[in-house]
Amino acid sequence: MNSKLRVTVWGENVHEHKNKLVAQAYPKGMHTCIADALNKDASIVARTATLDQPEHGLTEAVLEKTDVLTWWGHCAHGQVQDAVVDRVQKRVLEGMGLIVLHSGHYSKIFKRLLGTTCSLTWREAGEKERIWVCNPGHPIAAGIDKYFEIEQEEMYGEPFAIPNPDEIVFLSWFQGGEVFRSGATFKRGNGKIFYFRPGHEVYPTYHHPQVQRVIQNAVRWAAPEGKWIDSCPNVPADKAPEKITARGPTLHKAGEAGLR
Amino acid sequence: MNSKLRVTVWGENVHEHKNKLVAQAYPKGMHTCIADALNKDASIVARTATLDQPEHGLTEAVLEKTDVLTWWGHCAHGQVQDAVVDRVQKRVLEGMGLIVLHSGHYSKIFKRLLGTTCSLTWREAGEKERIWVCNPGHPIAAGIDKYFEIEQEEMYGEPFAIPNPDEIVFLSWFQGGEVFRSGATFKRGNGKIFYFRPGHEVYPTYHHPQVQRVIQNAVRWAAPEGKWIDSCPNVPADKAPEKITARGPTLHKAGEAGLR
Amino acid sequence: MNSKLRVTVWGENVHEHKNKLVAQAYPKGMHTCIADALNKDASIVARTATLDQPEHGLTEAVLEKTDVLTWWGHCAHGQVQDAVVDRVQKRVLEGMGLIVLHSGHYSKIFKRLLGTTCSLTWREAGEKERIWVCNPGHPIAAGIDKYFEIEQEEMYGEPFAIPNPDEIVFLSWFQGGEVFRSGATFKRGNGKIFYFRPGHEVYPTYHHPQVQRVIQNAVRWAAPEGKWIDSCPNVPADKAPEKITARGPTLHKAGEAGLR
Amino acid sequence: MNSKLRVTVWGENVHEHKNKLVAQAYPKGMHTCIADALNKDASIVARTATLDQPEHGLTEAVLEKTDVLTWWGHCAHGQVQDAVVDRVQKRVLEGMGLIVLHSGHYSKIFKRLLGTTCSLTWREAGEKERIWVCNPGHPIAAGIDKYFEIEQEEMYGEPFAIPNPDEIVFLSWFQGGEVFRSGATFKRGNGKIFYFRPGHEVYPTYHHPQVQRVIQNAVRWAAPEGKWIDSCPNVPADKAPEKITARGPTLHKAGEAGLR
Repeated sequence: MNSKLRVTVWGENVHEHKNKLVAQAYPKGMHTCIADALNKDASIVARTATLDQPEHGLTEAVLEKTDVLTWWGHCAHGQVQDAVVDRVQKRVLEGMGLIVLHSGHYSKIFKRLLGTTCSLTWREAGEKERIWVCNPGHPIAAGIDKYFEIEQEEMYGEPFAIPNPDEIVFLSWFQGGEVFRSGATFKRGNGKIFYFRPGHEVYPTYHHPQVQRVIQNAVRWAAPEGKWIDSCPNVPADKAPEKITARGPTLHKAGEAGLR
Repeated sequence: MNSKLRVTVWGENVHEHKNKLVAQAYPKGMHTCIADALNKDASIVARTATLDQPEHGLTEAVLEKTDVLTWWGHCAHGQVQDAVVDRVQKRVLEGMGLIVLHSGHYSKIFKRLLGTTCSLTWREAGEKERIWVCNPGHPIAAGIDKYFEIEQEEMYGEPFAIPNPDEIVFLSWFQGGEVFRSGATFKRGNGKIFYFRPGHEVYPTYHHPQVQRVIQNAVRWAAPEGKWIDSCPNVPADKAPEKITARGPTLHKAGEAGLR
Repeated sequence: MNSKLRVTVWGENVHEHKNKLVAQAYPKGMHTCIADALNKDASIVARTATLDQPEHGLTEAVLEKTDVLTWWGHCAHGQVQDAVVDRVQKRVLEGMGLIVLHSGHYSKIFKRLLGTTCSLTWREAGEKERIWVCNPGHPIAAGIDKYFEIEQEEMYGEPFAIPNPDEIVFLSWFQGGEVFRSGATFKRGNGKIFYFRPGHEVYPTYHHPQVQRVIQNAVRWAAPEGKWIDSCPNVPADKAPEKITARGPTLHKAGEAGLR
Repeated sequence: MNSKLRVTVWGENVHEHKNKLVAQAYPKGMHTCIADALNKDASIVARTATLDQPEHGLTEAVLEKTDVLTWWGHCAHGQVQDAVVDRVQKRVLEGMGLIVLHSGHYSKIFKRLLGTTCSLTWREAGEKERIWVCNPGHPIAAGIDKYFEIEQEEMYGEPFAIPNPDEIVFLSWFQGGEVFRSGATFKRGNGKIFYFRPGHEVYPTYHHPQVQRVIQNAVRWAAPEGKWIDSCPNVPADKAPEKITARGPTLHKAGEAGLR
């Protein structure tokens, strides 16, 4: 029996090859660092997928076997094919979990699911970030004390242009004076979504034990609890739960599919 | 002084010309019927726009002068240009109100803003619909009794694939045995959104006084209360609210725009 | 190892002894019927507690060992001691799940946690209720088809005076023409709350297999995922995360507890 | 015609008489300072009420003529009579707006409406607070730039034990390193509720022009838009919207009131 949670860690994997600082911080790529961290959790089996692979490594077959997808991208959001975004969205609505990391706030899939611009203010000054827990009993904050600190991070500040989250798990304090909703949950269809702020590529953030712990927690929290295969079925008059007789004008002929 | 609320009533205006039943019910088009109803309210000035007009009648100039947009479409959702959908979305996020009517649940703009499929079950049998008020003090339900009835309507049933609404103002009971969340509010960016279920084109629904009253109420409820011009500004280290010194590695050069 | 979910089924247990019809439908009490149904689920161990027991059977010790509490009451809400309500509320805020059944909408604990009157309209006419699923992938709806029916039930109708739920899992259609939000989730503190409508005491509702299935599902859904022990700690200036020097006037002396 | 918004500013008015620092900052009481600020807004007429008055100045007659109530209390929450809290709650559920200020987070009325402990962490060190706007288009943030600062304030930090707000309008950054959800909206029944953090009594916070502006904005935002007179009506079988015949066992006799 294999009841492990199947996670696909998606990484853009571009800056790792173009920028020495990123390559130094993540010699095997950010996606491998994140997947390794997840695989330390005995309940999880994580694989990776990257932009440069056919269909960005997110084929129908891969997604069908993915319980939770994590997403990190930055400079190449525009290169992600719309057909793959459609496919990921469909799986999230069915129930696949989605963890969006840092600059993934501007990914096509996050903006698609939230419906807003997802913009924010930002500064790259290597300043300190302190991440506070808003509900100490929340499963995504398990094992985290009142707060944890990241010595050097990019700043993301409010206003963060997202719809009101279902829950705010973390808030960030920045040395330079800003604040941010750093851990926020959403539900779209039957899929659980968690946005987690840290992870600028020139810093070793994904090596940080508490960042790793939060991502492990989030993946377990986002595990599917059921599947919603969505359609838009017609219910003919003679199949109505209550007996009715169709009457009056109609647009559609019997058995016709609905308009889209 | 002109402090009237400026409403643009968007109508697909296709079935009115192809289907005799629709043409009989709405000789001047559904959009004209809705706009006429809104113009009975002294606080509102409503104009119309239709699919066949250049840019579907929704130019930058028109949208800039629109406080609230109402949207009805059915058979031609796919013909709405993406550039116009982008423009409408941008205005909603800034603060323009949006009222989505009936089969508009499958419009590009509604799906874009909600991030889900917005599907439902349906039946065209001319059955009775009874629309119940869930909060008798809600401004969208002003002047409506405990419920009102529409003698003949298309049935829309649950599951309705939308994110959890901010508020549910109406629930529908159908003669054939189904139920539906018929009046639901959302907020995206600074824009208020209201979905209102009734309005199948072969029935005279938009002539119904209580349907008209709800749409008038909804338009007033959705009036902009401010404007959010969204961007994603960089805050350089020397402009941080607290004095900090930039340190460590950086990806961006000073003054560079962020990645998207 | 005992990793079963520990459920306490609370029953008012008054009408069972005063009304022949109720006694016939539930010879061992409604609470026993519900507990028996839960104990059919191998992952659950359910015990009962009733109003007539000391501290209504809900001592500190019992609640400490309760993962999820189910609550049914009707004619004796006023007899529940406030001290017990305080205790239950405290445990819910820490993370204990709470399933509120039918006439429990007027229980002290439900009104306490929601902050509203929780009123509704009602009729006792033995009419048919059809309960629709709003998200077919939701764990509380697992194993339930599009809808299920209860041949005879009391009607509860909108407006239901609750704050907007986090999710609506079920909506009811009644033969007499009303609708109702029959399955609704809330979160207070770290505790998950589910309200489930059916269960008028003169009908055999809690013998209904799908009603039993929903309550089993709900109990598993509401299982605690962590614990939030709440306090209101002072953080002295010399323990602040950032180095600060206290300055200016103060109301409190060092080490003083806060005001409540 | 008098269409001004009628505001009652409730103040505990205890520390003003016991503590020299508070008396110096607010010679006429904090409530008077707040009411004076509101009365600068031509659309508002504000009166005051205090703990020491009969029924704390919140008689049925006063509340009936109050559109929005603001609440500041700290050391005497326990002295507020439950009957008055009941009355205020009833009016909020009907539609009266409620603005809860600073230490009012622990007031009986706020905890009553939210259902949680409303606790937080705190420090009195006269440190700087910077209050960030999360939605620049929100009416409560009108006229406020990206942020404003209060040179000396008490610190309130997360976790703030409230249910997830409908919207977060402001987040605070504190010099000592904490963050807080400083401006949060809720709806209970038909009443709009806004919590606003600043206002420790030993500092001149309520003289701060931007704090005054936010309270003016909030009062206008919370204005009633309708009235919900709540009851729990029985609908007899012969008054059902659909024709039904009562059948089967009943608990209640015809015309009997429901149980509570």
